[in-house]
Amino acid sequence: MIKTPGTMNSVSRMRHKENKSIGFVPTMGCLHEGHLSLVRKAKVECDVVVLSIFVNPIQFGPREDFKRYPRYPSKDKMLARREGVDYIFMPAPPVMYPENFQTCVLPGKLSSGLSGAARPGHFKGVCTVVAKLFNIVEPDTAYFGQKDFQQAQVVKQMIKDLNMNVGVKILPIVREPDGLAMSSRNRYLNDSERKEVPVLYESLREAKRLIRDGCRNTGKIKKTIKKTINTAKYVNIEYIKLLNPDTLEPVDKNDKKFLVVIAARVGKVRLIDNVIVS
Amino acid sequence: MIKTPGTMNSVSRMRHKENKSIGFVPTMGCLHEGHLSLVRKAKVECDVVVLSIFVNPIQFGPREDFKRYPRYPSKDKMLARREGVDYIFMPAPPVMYPENFQTCVLPGKLSSGLSGAARPGHFKGVCTVVAKLFNIVEPDTAYFGQKDFQQAQVVKQMIKDLNMNVGVKILPIVREPDGLAMSSRNRYLNDSERKEVPVLYESLREAKRLIRDGCRNTGKIKKTIKKTINTAKYVNIEYIKLLNPDTLEPVDKNDKKFLVVIAARVGKVRLIDNVIVS
Repeated sequence: MIKTPGTMNSVSRMRHKENKSIGFVPTMGCLHEGHLSLVRKAKVECDVVVLSIFVNPIQFGPREDFKRYPRYPSKDKMLARREGVDYIFMPAPPVMYPENFQTCVLPGKLSSGLSGAARPGHFKGVCTVVAKLFNIVEPDTAYFGQKDFQQAQVVKQMIKDLNMNVGVKILPIVREPDGLAMSSRNRYLNDSERKEVPVLYESLREAKRLIRDGCRNTGKIKKTIKKTINTAKYVNIEYIKLLNPDTLEPVDKNDKKFLVVIAARVGKVRLIDNVIVS
Repeated sequence: MIKTPGTMNSVSRMRHKENKSIGFVPTMGCLHEGHLSLVRKAKVECDVVVLSIFVNPIQFGPREDFKRYPRYPSKDKMLARREGVDYIFMPAPPVMYPENFQTCVLPGKLSSGLSGAARPGHFKGVCTVVAKLFNIVEPDTAYFGQKDFQQAQVVKQMIKDLNMNVGVKILPIVREPDGLAMSSRNRYLNDSERKEVPVLYESLREAKRLIRDGCRNTGKIKKTIKKTINTAKYVNIEYIKLLNPDTLEPVDKNDKKFLVVIAARVGKVRLIDNVIVS
């Protein structure tokens, strides 16, 4: 358990001196199987695994769930230890954002649509904290989940644009047995909502089937998704998009890969999910 | 002479593995004694000295002098070699800003006044390129000149805010025998302008004398500076400011250090100069 950037960086530098590779899993805590799948991959690929737990205030909007975001540090520590995490980096917000903090990392057009449109400033907050964490941990490889697909793309672009010396691995979405994508926010759902939300993945599987069957009519695909989701009473669609997974631009008929991405509001909860069809 | 970020970073990492410290002097070329004083300091303090030459397009405004900014690569190389620079990093603009480049580093309130007010977007361009160069070169210490005082403060703040692992040294302004602060832009001046511009430093010395004599009346100090500069026909004051050198806020009567900073237009040329009085 490390709480200050200075100590974390010293430890990382020491391990690098020993020629150890460092794998890094940045999280906001409330660890679930999605996070743990990242840790397991990092354990296989790297000598040392660092997991950070930091609920990053600057990536939440003023009317978002920063304060009530679930925090379970003891359970997280237990899970991280059980998976063989070597260091947990868990700084307090004033350590990361002291008085007079003012420099941010500003992402570009990849961040403007989708969740970036729904959550202004969100990806600026994400890029800023990830840049800080990369400088503190100096990892060889960082691990992200595909659930936050746009986040992963925005971070990859930041690394490229700012010449950061960090490799990125994006790992598949881990799901509950009924298909719901794992997310710390799932615990906000009440029983009736929880029963309905598997409809999101169900609709994505239908889209996948349609595309694999040769359908390239994005209007038709969206309509199918919408119809399925609308069978659920509490699930309100925010967007359904068919995109090129590299550019996040609307798919072209000649694209070989389709990213189908959806966001929905369920009560006050915002859920996202996606599939890539190739 | 290194032209690509990949090669530069490999070289830096190799030298770090050998436990060598790296000193870094970022420049836009057209090297003068100001730059060379930074190189000499780096030579004394570090095992390896890297000098970059890159006229950074994104820190120039659309109506500024990017295209006509003086470029003398052969002379620069000769001067750098003579001072014992180990590596010159000289990337081409498309290598630093490939198509689809979109992520920037956005500085905060330190960048909003002074040159930041006169040159919108300038310090965003500076921070972005410096962040890139730091990631490419991975220096232990970077050297900047005090002439661009605000730039040095903005970069120091960026390093602190983004947890970059780079030390910064700010070295004194190097001047021509008649007091003019060395600057690559001085060569834009015609003979009559060149004869007049030492008035800038003369006015700063007068301000220094006044303050040392106990004057804390900022209005009076500014008036003295203005009066002196206005004896020159071609020199038009852009601003005269008395600031706290750490915060760049207007000085308070209890401050122990005064930063006196001026900017002036001489024809199309923008010149800046400053002194710190303590």
